[in-house]
Amino acid sequence: MFGIKNKKEKNLELGFGTKNYNGSVRFLNKDGSVNIKRKGLNFFDNLDVYHWLITTTSFNLTLVILGGYAVLNTVFALVYYILGPENFGGIEAMSGGDRFMDLFFFSAQTLTTVGYGHVYPHSVSVSTVAAIESLSGLLGFAVATGVLYGRFSRPNAHLMYSDNAIIAPYQGITGLMFRIANTKQNELIETEASLVIAYTNPETNKREFEALPLEINKINFLPMSWTIVHPIDDKSPIYNASVDDLIMQDAELIILVKAINDTYSQTVYSRMSYKAHEFVEKAKFIPIVPEANGGKIKIKLTDIHKYTKLE
Amino acid sequence: MFGIKNKKEKNLELGFGTKNYNGSVRFLNKDGSVNIKRKGLNFFDNLDVYHWLITTTSFNLTLVILGGYAVLNTVFALVYYILGPENFGGIEAMSGGDRFMDLFFFSAQTLTTVGYGHVYPHSVSVSTVAAIESLSGLLGFAVATGVLYGRFSRPNAHLMYSDNAIIAPYQGITGLMFRIANTKQNELIETEASLVIAYTNPETNKREFEALPLEINKINFLPMSWTIVHPIDDKSPIYNASVDDLIMQDAELIILVKAINDTYSQTVYSRMSYKAHEFVEKAKFIPIVPEANGGKIKIKLTDIHKYTKLE
Amino acid sequence: MFGIKNKKEKNLELGFGTKNYNGSVRFLNKDGSVNIKRKGLNFFDNLDVYHWLITTTSFNLTLVILGGYAVLNTVFALVYYILGPENFGGIEAMSGGDRFMDLFFFSAQTLTTVGYGHVYPHSVSVSTVAAIESLSGLLGFAVATGVLYGRFSRPNAHLMYSDNAIIAPYQGITGLMFRIANTKQNELIETEASLVIAYTNPETNKREFEALPLEINKINFLPMSWTIVHPIDDKSPIYNASVDDLIMQDAELIILVKAINDTYSQTVYSRMSYKAHEFVEKAKFIPIVPEANGGKIKIKLTDIHKYTKLE
Amino acid sequence: MFGIKNKKEKNLELGFGTKNYNGSVRFLNKDGSVNIKRKGLNFFDNLDVYHWLITTTSFNLTLVILGGYAVLNTVFALVYYILGPENFGGIEAMSGGDRFMDLFFFSAQTLTTVGYGHVYPHSVSVSTVAAIESLSGLLGFAVATGVLYGRFSRPNAHLMYSDNAIIAPYQGITGLMFRIANTKQNELIETEASLVIAYTNPETNKREFEALPLEINKINFLPMSWTIVHPIDDKSPIYNASVDDLIMQDAELIILVKAINDTYSQTVYSRMSYKAHEFVEKAKFIPIVPEANGGKIKIKLTDIHKYTKLE
Repeated sequence: MFGIKNKKEKNLELGFGTKNYNGSVRFLNKDGSVNIKRKGLNFFDNLDVYHWLITTTSFNLTLVILGGYAVLNTVFALVYYILGPENFGGIEAMSGGDRFMDLFFFSAQTLTTVGYGHVYPHSVSVSTVAAIESLSGLLGFAVATGVLYGRFSRPNAHLMYSDNAIIAPYQGITGLMFRIANTKQNELIETEASLVIAYTNPETNKREFEALPLEINKINFLPMSWTIVHPIDDKSPIYNASVDDLIMQDAELIILVKAINDTYSQTVYSRMSYKAHEFVEKAKFIPIVPEANGGKIKIKLTDIHKYTKLE
Repeated sequence: MFGIKNKKEKNLELGFGTKNYNGSVRFLNKDGSVNIKRKGLNFFDNLDVYHWLITTTSFNLTLVILGGYAVLNTVFALVYYILGPENFGGIEAMSGGDRFMDLFFFSAQTLTTVGYGHVYPHSVSVSTVAAIESLSGLLGFAVATGVLYGRFSRPNAHLMYSDNAIIAPYQGITGLMFRIANTKQNELIETEASLVIAYTNPETNKREFEALPLEINKINFLPMSWTIVHPIDDKSPIYNASVDDLIMQDAELIILVKAINDTYSQTVYSRMSYKAHEFVEKAKFIPIVPEANGGKIKIKLTDIHKYTKLE
Repeated sequence: MFGIKNKKEKNLELGFGTKNYNGSVRFLNKDGSVNIKRKGLNFFDNLDVYHWLITTTSFNLTLVILGGYAVLNTVFALVYYILGPENFGGIEAMSGGDRFMDLFFFSAQTLTTVGYGHVYPHSVSVSTVAAIESLSGLLGFAVATGVLYGRFSRPNAHLMYSDNAIIAPYQGITGLMFRIANTKQNELIETEASLVIAYTNPETNKREFEALPLEINKINFLPMSWTIVHPIDDKSPIYNASVDDLIMQDAELIILVKAINDTYSQTVYSRMSYKAHEFVEKAKFIPIVPEANGGKIKIKLTDIHKYTKLE
Repeated sequence: MFGIKNKKEKNLELGFGTKNYNGSVRFLNKDGSVNIKRKGLNFFDNLDVYHWLITTTSFNLTLVILGGYAVLNTVFALVYYILGPENFGGIEAMSGGDRFMDLFFFSAQTLTTVGYGHVYPHSVSVSTVAAIESLSGLLGFAVATGVLYGRFSRPNAHLMYSDNAIIAPYQGITGLMFRIANTKQNELIETEASLVIAYTNPETNKREFEALPLEINKINFLPMSWTIVHPIDDKSPIYNASVDDLIMQDAELIILVKAINDTYSQTVYSRMSYKAHEFVEKAKFIPIVPEANGGKIKIKLTDIHKYTKLE
């Protein structure tokens, strides 16, 4: 029988465990996030507020900041209102609603430490609350500074992967290959890749994982694009497996890339996966030929997706 | 005689020294902190304020901030009071106590830079002190920003360890094994483990340390759980040692784990120890079978503790 | 035929790709930046605001900050003006232009949270805008803190390279060598270098890349200067190539240096290239002899450029 | 002749260069700083303000902050005074000196954004300067936040070295050894050491450098103390050299230590040197015996200096 063969007795070192799950859902989502939900812990064990603030969208973060600001001002305004607007100097409003609004804006002016002073606390009770509020404002702002810096300086590999993985001729045999490129203006140094294939073992009907060795697994420098190649020799787990076999075994090619962003000297990580239906047989990538004009070398990154079918 | 055997002439490379201590207290506390007190230095050599601020509980930090704020305001209020409340504009209070409170809140408004201005400094002396106070406020707040960012961004491996270490059948022989899992939603990459066993040598009655080699000591990725195994072959220091032998020799299994948190690209460390009475003989871990439903792979982390006794 | 010989079948591992470009523009600019423009992506994929803010000149950053401040104040002043200056207390100006200026400075006082209060918002509408403006000010300032810290703490190797690469006698054969030194007062640790030569293959008329192995590619410590040497033995791609050959093949020596700055414990990178016309044959570097006087060892860094021609 | 022998043809890999200096000044100062002055560059190439702010004493930093604050306030007060105190509201002072003081404190209130508002700008010219001053204050404060965070979070190995290096019996031969310990409450992981000996070659009368290999050059963990040993076997450059020989050749033992501080997961560096007169022959270190009482293991760090002379 053809198809993926288990070439090793154990595959512990890949970190996917020895007992594997049934079923065929993706292991890695297309954006590189891991499609695993860890359960069995209570809410607080799972909670990681800073991680969420750092990784959420800008839109969510803006909502959290504006919402938090509105809620805090409302709460403090209520406390001031309960303590009595008569403890404040400079309030001219007569109706309860207007007074509440005056206290709400006094709260905003205190929280941001802008403190115009046309409304000001006049008694010990409200002065104490205002002193706590301005301290809270400063600390909240300290947190915001940390979160914004954390977001900006977070290590990120902006890699572009070719749309397909190709089974192409490679040094007399064939190779499973795909291309990556850096989409940003910084440089990636010491880029390393490793490949794992997940598949359903037809004998046990369970998901298993095999490493796919690479001819070259590390490059010094990634100025252009890098074609990552697993040579399909007789030691390869996918030796003699056709794309149809791989689809039947619901294969998923899991890619882990590691590099150093030289602007911040940070190690950055990127993950991706190709499902078997994204593999293309009997094809080869069209070389990306850089142009050298105007004293500048130019490469067109979207060319990394292009391949031709071999007859 | 059975029990732990010293397999090497020197164990310097473990970092535990050649001359070991008597007695049987834990070397590592259950939370991974090292149960060692370094003495013989004066107070300031040992002092590390930033380390304490970064690692203390949130409750302690809140106390320090609130306490520091109250103390600073009181000190500055006293200085203003000594310089004379008549140097301020806007103070209407008549009694000494009320004037002190006005100056206390003026101080708070200066320290936080909220500066409402209904009370304001009127002479060179108090203006100078207020100028210093507002600068102090800004610098104190700069420190707070650094401390909060330091706490948030501090590398942390949130690992869960199985409650027990198990001596289970392993590839024809037996192995000393335990399981770890990541409790957070980030991913751990390049996880490495090393094991040391501490025990009392019955001949010298001293504590000695031996490395326990692992079959696999590094994995690429820790999406699920990892069973860390020391194979108990004839080269193992605990070859032929029963759990009762290990308890008699007061053995402590010291675990050092190192990984990379890929959200911040930080290397994180975790330490743990099992005392011999937490070892279980003739048992095996129940495999953790991930479920694949709802398009998501789910694993129940608390299952890492579960084992069955073999008859 | 003499000249550079292709010594390997593939040079994938250098990261420059297998299909190379025609033409002879520099690959690395003299300042170490890569002379490559990545195209084919839309504007936002290429955009990396934080990277720009961190790496641009101080002059540009000052312009951005001052410009942003002026624009924001103008926009908020316009909003206040449209909502109506009569919603503010403390405005005494009579003409429209003067009122606008009052609102402009009120905006500046709100954005920076200085809030003198001689002008203050008086209605719900303008108070709401002012509350949003002071929050924006704080957040913008949080961003500025992050950007300034990011600029200061950015890893940077301040290396000086000798003006020329020299082909000098070296241990019986010759070597291609150049010298580097650290220009700053910090120390560089574990400095590593690697060399690649780019040249036009006269047979295919394409650019190719070859690694040039080094006798010593890593040093512990860089207190003085380091002479980096590629021994030109019979395994070298430039064996038997004269400088004229190298110029004809438009050779470019690409240098990647990596080190650790021990003040911040950061890995820093430096890149440089010599074009063939910067090579000097039959010469040798004049040794840099440190002086030991006044209890201090002194070296003159500009001496790293000096060489003598051998007859 | 006895004394230090040059065992290798080249010592490039140590980073001390091949051509060495005459004279006998220390290479490393006792505090680990490098006793080298790099010359030949103009002032700005050598300037590294952030490095200075991060590494200077707290006292110097305080002076810089207070001095900068005073200077900035004086400059802005002068500008306001030149523009005319009549452009301000709230100034009641009559004499020029008093008016200047009012403007000086107005400047301080603007720079720190406290803005009480009893004095406030009244015309376009002074309002513009005040708007620039408050922005400067915020940016200056952003810089201060970065500098303070940079100082706090700077990687630092707080290592204690034994006062002397000892030539003691070691596994049948002798060894050159010294002890190190961590003085802080954090833990050091993966501590690595390397040793170089600098000496004057009596034949050439020049300084040369030799690596001294270590039996163990890396330990997992440094909870107690570590005795670093160079075995003086027949391959050692100091084989058959007495301490008197070493003193005559003005030997200096240069130590580079690297470790990871696990609180911040930072790689930290420490350097030290022993001059030959700090070597002790025919001695051995007194073992540091940890005490285990009160459930805590205690070690006395100052014991690392203690040795006994062997007869």
